[in-house]
Amino acid sequence: MASQDDLFHPVIELPEAVRRARYHRLVGLDDIKLRLRKEAVLLADPRKLQAWADAHHGGDVAVLKLFADRAPLFVFAGDVGSGKSALAESFGCDLADQLDLPVLLYRLKLATRGSGLVGEMTALIGDAFAHLHAEGRRVQGPRGVNSVLVLVVDEADALVQSREAQQMHHEDRAGVDAFLAGIDSLAGAEVPVIVVLCTNRVGALDPAVMRRAAATFTFGRPDDRQRHAVLTQALDGLAIGPETVDKLVARTGPSTGRPGYTFSDITQRLVPAAILRAFPDQPVRDEDLLALAEELKPTPVFAEEH
Amino acid sequence: MASQDDLFHPVIELPEAVRRARYHRLVGLDDIKLRLRKEAVLLADPRKLQAWADAHHGGDVAVLKLFADRAPLFVFAGDVGSGKSALAESFGCDLADQLDLPVLLYRLKLATRGSGLVGEMTALIGDAFAHLHAEGRRVQGPRGVNSVLVLVVDEADALVQSREAQQMHHEDRAGVDAFLAGIDSLAGAEVPVIVVLCTNRVGALDPAVMRRAAATFTFGRPDDRQRHAVLTQALDGLAIGPETVDKLVARTGPSTGRPGYTFSDITQRLVPAAILRAFPDQPVRDEDLLALAEELKPTPVFAEEH
Amino acid sequence: MASQDDLFHPVIELPEAVRRARYHRLVGLDDIKLRLRKEAVLLADPRKLQAWADAHHGGDVAVLKLFADRAPLFVFAGDVGSGKSALAESFGCDLADQLDLPVLLYRLKLATRGSGLVGEMTALIGDAFAHLHAEGRRVQGPRGVNSVLVLVVDEADALVQSREAQQMHHEDRAGVDAFLAGIDSLAGAEVPVIVVLCTNRVGALDPAVMRRAAATFTFGRPDDRQRHAVLTQALDGLAIGPETVDKLVARTGPSTGRPGYTFSDITQRLVPAAILRAFPDQPVRDEDLLALAEELKPTPVFAEEH
Amino acid sequence: MASQDDLFHPVIELPEAVRRARYHRLVGLDDIKLRLRKEAVLLADPRKLQAWADAHHGGDVAVLKLFADRAPLFVFAGDVGSGKSALAESFGCDLADQLDLPVLLYRLKLATRGSGLVGEMTALIGDAFAHLHAEGRRVQGPRGVNSVLVLVVDEADALVQSREAQQMHHEDRAGVDAFLAGIDSLAGAEVPVIVVLCTNRVGALDPAVMRRAAATFTFGRPDDRQRHAVLTQALDGLAIGPETVDKLVARTGPSTGRPGYTFSDITQRLVPAAILRAFPDQPVRDEDLLALAEELKPTPVFAEEH
Amino acid sequence: MASQDDLFHPVIELPEAVRRARYHRLVGLDDIKLRLRKEAVLLADPRKLQAWADAHHGGDVAVLKLFADRAPLFVFAGDVGSGKSALAESFGCDLADQLDLPVLLYRLKLATRGSGLVGEMTALIGDAFAHLHAEGRRVQGPRGVNSVLVLVVDEADALVQSREAQQMHHEDRAGVDAFLAGIDSLAGAEVPVIVVLCTNRVGALDPAVMRRAAATFTFGRPDDRQRHAVLTQALDGLAIGPETVDKLVARTGPSTGRPGYTFSDITQRLVPAAILRAFPDQPVRDEDLLALAEELKPTPVFAEEH
Amino acid sequence: MASQDDLFHPVIELPEAVRRARYHRLVGLDDIKLRLRKEAVLLADPRKLQAWADAHHGGDVAVLKLFADRAPLFVFAGDVGSGKSALAESFGCDLADQLDLPVLLYRLKLATRGSGLVGEMTALIGDAFAHLHAEGRRVQGPRGVNSVLVLVVDEADALVQSREAQQMHHEDRAGVDAFLAGIDSLAGAEVPVIVVLCTNRVGALDPAVMRRAAATFTFGRPDDRQRHAVLTQALDGLAIGPETVDKLVARTGPSTGRPGYTFSDITQRLVPAAILRAFPDQPVRDEDLLALAEELKPTPVFAEEH
Repeated sequence: MASQDDLFHPVIELPEAVRRARYHRLVGLDDIKLRLRKEAVLLADPRKLQAWADAHHGGDVAVLKLFADRAPLFVFAGDVGSGKSALAESFGCDLADQLDLPVLLYRLKLATRGSGLVGEMTALIGDAFAHLHAEGRRVQGPRGVNSVLVLVVDEADALVQSREAQQMHHEDRAGVDAFLAGIDSLAGAEVPVIVVLCTNRVGALDPAVMRRAAATFTFGRPDDRQRHAVLTQALDGLAIGPETVDKLVARTGPSTGRPGYTFSDITQRLVPAAILRAFPDQPVRDEDLLALAEELKPTPVFAEEH
Repeated sequence: MASQDDLFHPVIELPEAVRRARYHRLVGLDDIKLRLRKEAVLLADPRKLQAWADAHHGGDVAVLKLFADRAPLFVFAGDVGSGKSALAESFGCDLADQLDLPVLLYRLKLATRGSGLVGEMTALIGDAFAHLHAEGRRVQGPRGVNSVLVLVVDEADALVQSREAQQMHHEDRAGVDAFLAGIDSLAGAEVPVIVVLCTNRVGALDPAVMRRAAATFTFGRPDDRQRHAVLTQALDGLAIGPETVDKLVARTGPSTGRPGYTFSDITQRLVPAAILRAFPDQPVRDEDLLALAEELKPTPVFAEEH
Repeated sequence: MASQDDLFHPVIELPEAVRRARYHRLVGLDDIKLRLRKEAVLLADPRKLQAWADAHHGGDVAVLKLFADRAPLFVFAGDVGSGKSALAESFGCDLADQLDLPVLLYRLKLATRGSGLVGEMTALIGDAFAHLHAEGRRVQGPRGVNSVLVLVVDEADALVQSREAQQMHHEDRAGVDAFLAGIDSLAGAEVPVIVVLCTNRVGALDPAVMRRAAATFTFGRPDDRQRHAVLTQALDGLAIGPETVDKLVARTGPSTGRPGYTFSDITQRLVPAAILRAFPDQPVRDEDLLALAEELKPTPVFAEEH
Repeated sequence: MASQDDLFHPVIELPEAVRRARYHRLVGLDDIKLRLRKEAVLLADPRKLQAWADAHHGGDVAVLKLFADRAPLFVFAGDVGSGKSALAESFGCDLADQLDLPVLLYRLKLATRGSGLVGEMTALIGDAFAHLHAEGRRVQGPRGVNSVLVLVVDEADALVQSREAQQMHHEDRAGVDAFLAGIDSLAGAEVPVIVVLCTNRVGALDPAVMRRAAATFTFGRPDDRQRHAVLTQALDGLAIGPETVDKLVARTGPSTGRPGYTFSDITQRLVPAAILRAFPDQPVRDEDLLALAEELKPTPVFAEEH
Repeated sequence: MASQDDLFHPVIELPEAVRRARYHRLVGLDDIKLRLRKEAVLLADPRKLQAWADAHHGGDVAVLKLFADRAPLFVFAGDVGSGKSALAESFGCDLADQLDLPVLLYRLKLATRGSGLVGEMTALIGDAFAHLHAEGRRVQGPRGVNSVLVLVVDEADALVQSREAQQMHHEDRAGVDAFLAGIDSLAGAEVPVIVVLCTNRVGALDPAVMRRAAATFTFGRPDDRQRHAVLTQALDGLAIGPETVDKLVARTGPSTGRPGYTFSDITQRLVPAAILRAFPDQPVRDEDLLALAEELKPTPVFAEEH
Repeated sequence: MASQDDLFHPVIELPEAVRRARYHRLVGLDDIKLRLRKEAVLLADPRKLQAWADAHHGGDVAVLKLFADRAPLFVFAGDVGSGKSALAESFGCDLADQLDLPVLLYRLKLATRGSGLVGEMTALIGDAFAHLHAEGRRVQGPRGVNSVLVLVVDEADALVQSREAQQMHHEDRAGVDAFLAGIDSLAGAEVPVIVVLCTNRVGALDPAVMRRAAATFTFGRPDDRQRHAVLTQALDGLAIGPETVDKLVARTGPSTGRPGYTFSDITQRLVPAAILRAFPDQPVRDEDLLALAEELKPTPVFAEEH
């Protein structure tokens, strides 16, 4: 069986300062954050669902059985730079804070695709889920779980691309099947594992994967409110006037034939470019920011139709 | 020869509680259930067909010979989430109850496609059928069979894709041929084996496979009656009003440009989402369910034309 | 050199009861049956041709030389379920009866395509023909041949697909060439071997193969007369009225947008389904058969244009 | 270095009775036959060209040098059944008769394409030409050559397909190059070797191969005169009336939407079918032949545009 | 782990005379040169950004954190011969001069694509970034960095082609992911490494790579001003009249249906051709240059739509 | 490192009689011949350029530096039979005569494409250039070079096909890159090596290769003047009248829908065919030549659009 290092990037114990800060910078995603928090609570302590049923429905509800049959699988779909990966790798900080438990972040290595021997990808994906099962049982303590596990599969389309595609290689189809088997094995296993698939090609995911998702969240480029929040955060301390920020919000939004800025277009390109234009001899001026927002083209949209 | 573990997922002896419950949750499939039951009865004790002929047709009917030439092959075709796999893996519980015999559920491993050496898939499929033959003979007792075998091939299109496809790899064509040979070897072999192919791409199955099927059953997304039954079961105990259930039946049905909900959309997504929205502070309310049924998009249809 | 078991399915000595019955069930194919019988007679005893020439043409005819140059190759082309494979594997029973000699039925293994090493398919096909030559010489006795050999290649398009196809793999082209060489080696070799290629994609066969065929027979789905005969046979003993059989003949025939039933649609699907509907409590009734003939869709046509 | 058996089918020493008869049956190809005869004479004894120049042009002609630079390569292009392969493998009989020398017929094995190791095809083709060189030197005697070598490459398009095709595999391109190198090595080598490429896809041959051909001969399906001759030969002794032969010539010719018969359609299909229809009880009658000529479809044309 | 020699071409310490000269010959690229210089200054001594914030914004600015999260990645996009590779490999000379520090130029070997074992490319790219990290830490001295590292990836599209392309091989997708991981690992790592991707197919780069770029610079063919400067430099000493240079500028510019000259068309083709036409007996004359500028066709544009 | 025999066809020392004769038979290519001669002179003794600058421009010219940066790469583009390969392999004879030095002709083996291991092609191309470098240094004597090296890559498109082609294999792209690196390594290396790429698909060459070419020469089919010269040479001694030659020039030229003859169509097909028609009993007559020129179709044009 492949070792943990073969299967995952180094496991990160959350909360962790950088990721917690990222989590809080992700504005406008409150619904998703709340849903994830609740899912984790129930995984960490399934008795809470019974308690809720007792309190609000007199206890005897059929739905409790359905929960045992569900896979804790979430799909985060959206364009590059929309924050989906950032959220996937940071929401565990919030869970950790809420549950007062450590959260272990597992990130599937793309090398899980194997070294090319047919059948190996299937084996590696099997090993990865076996690992999570073993770990999930290990964290069961006498008084409930003592940590929660999050598995993030970034660029998930590469792993679980739809078997509809006729040109798909058999080994890849087998990999999808192995993944489906892994997910199914989590359903009802009573291990505190949440799986998140991130993709910018949601249409490319296999329907059998999609069907198993407890929920699919779609991440867009930031809207006006989100861009305003991000710009305000990023420009803090530079004495940029509020009306300039408003103009920046407008200029970084979508217009005809051009998409809006991504989160990272603002934080990693627009604002640093303004700093570097000013550095080392001048302050950042409002007009420089506005001019750069005219010049700088947003990251192109990932064309799923390709 | 490959071992049983190489060829099949762990064999499950039916009846088994979880699968029996699933079988009974599958509402609206009575015709299929009855047909499968009769097939199994005749496989378990072929003399019953003669007895029937004696009783109803005076005994001497040509058709008895045809039965010896048939392969006990069934195709379950339908969309993801339509219950076809769930039925394939659970109808053995009913057979077991009817025959008062254990039913052994074999599920072909996708690894049967082999480790990539040309010729290996052919060999593995051959081994799988050899296994069933050996087991089928083993269960013959002095007073008839002492169990029935069910082989389920899920995602069967991957295994027996039509050789019409020009880009098909030779090894795959050989795999189809090996499968055909396996099916043919069961015809007249007098072993109590039923083979079920599940696929959401029935159009992709090889015509020579289709032609051998004793019957092809098409599974759709649940109709109004089925959704009503499923919703009633799932919401049991939550005190949801019957008129709300009726509205949910309507809202989860197909509408222009949108397919209806799958079974799993209802049981694994809609109802759990309602619970999680209420949890931990409120009861589930009728209006929440109705609102969610508006929001939640059904699983996309598997596009066979792709 | 590969062993006989590597090259062929188990060799069957004809006549054999099951195949003889199949041969006689194949109604409406008298021309083909007669032609095959004559070919076999001449292969078993070539002197009979000279005798015929003596009797009817004064003996000295050029055409005798042509016969020495011909390959005893026949192509059976037609849709799935049209009876071509059944005839190919059973006409040897008739030959055996006519010649009062055993007929050995060889069925080429699809594994002849080799284990993937380039050049191996070529070698295996060469071995297969070498085997037939050796066997063909062995059956030569002091007073003529003491048996006749029939080689059946089912799904022949997979083996001798037209080299016109540009995407064809070189190894496959080489396999076609090896097959051509094998056929050519039979021409004039004076061994009693008949080769039959079955295919449902006759348009996919290599023209150089087609050109070598002594004859190409096209098998359609059964016509009214054939369906009537098959239905009458299959329903024998069930007391179905003749007018019902006539209606069944009509309903199982082709109609707009739908092909007619295949032989196997009738014998393996329609009639067994009627039995199973009646079983165990009722007799088969005329109206059940008629209703089923409405419901049951014929096997789809193998789409060669694919 | 690969052995002769790896590279060529068994070498045949011409003249040989069967092939000589075939050569004479090939009617209507006199120009090609004469040209091949002259080429062979010059290869067998190059001094004859100088003698000719002396006799007819006073001896000092520049063209003698050109002959030293030419490769003795001929392309026989045409449809299946047009007699091109038959001529390629039999014209050596005529050479042998003309030169009163044995002619050795080498037929390149298609296995020369190698066992799949990249680079091997290149090596095998190199070996094949090295073999011809060695043999060509060996047959040089003190008084001129004591035999002539003919190398036939049937289905040559498979070996020297145009490198224009973008999807061509590198190894195949390298094989074409190896063949070009082999041909070039014969130019001026003063070994008595004639190379003939047969193909029914002349448009698929690499232009660099075509350019090296001393001549390209195109073989069509037989014209009226040729069909008349073939029919007369084949029907000899059957007492078929000349007017029937004329009608057969007409009916076997091309008509709208249907190509004419090939040589082999006449000799291996039409006439034998008539014999078999008559056999064993009747003579062949004119009307049977005419009826069969209506029924029997000619071999389809090899579609090069495919 | 692969050695430095496996991963990179020989590392070059800048400044170096030839490259410094090239840097100065690249006229008209001042904005890019300035930006690169500032980036390097901040990487070499991040405290300078704080100093700037102190001086111009009172010190406490949020943007300082953003800089820690940025990857020092630049994309140089443009046609062949536009100077992008020349700049990528020479701007380190300027950095070295500005910082008074050596600059180490790493050029990724294309062999980093691995020797074909699946997974190897992923490993090699990982090793390459690990190397830069190790080296980047090694150059940290007690008083700041003692050198700056520049990694140039020429023909970057081959390495980080968009995973949008459906026909992309899995190993290549994994390589893109490995590259993304490498870039992400540099963000915040506080090692003085600048990464430059050169490509003439910017549209082929993966959006996830593009999104991480601090800036994307587009290089066109030289405009009038740039061609004038290059021509003046190149013709220095040949006594070509200024009006001839003006005419050359016009003639080497783009016209209908024809692109303008590249830098190298001027320096490596036009001027040397004029020299060689004159050599050895005549001086270069104005009319020769003008005539050659008419004759010589510019390098064709790299057609990204291909 | 691969040996010289693995990399190159046997090295030929020029001048050599056959190739010198070919060189002189190539009429109408004087511009190219002169340019190649001058390039070789400068490579053999770079001081001559300085001497020329001193004599004609007062010595101090910038362009001398550009020469050090150039790669001595030439592209010979043109149709099959246009003489490009003949010139590439024979112009060294002229250089040898002009410089009074031996010229070593290296012809890259197509096997340089490697034995199929990924990375090997890259290695072999690297080895080939390393060989030329080593040899180029070895021929440096105390009084200048004592020989000049010419590397000819025939069918160069197979080696350096444009990486624009999306379906190109990575290994091939890496091979192009290795070739580019090899060419770049010659620039400024002061070794007397000239590289010539021959191709009939110039549009298929990688733009980055094209850009490095010192010059691209396009070879067409021979024009009237060239055909006249070739015909006159070839027919010398046959007493063909000049007006017949003129008619032949016209008939072998291009006409509507038909390209003109290639050089080899004239020398290897038309004239030999006339000889063979006359041989052995008659002289070649003017009318035979004219008739043949009507009949004989020119070699088809290599269709680059394919």
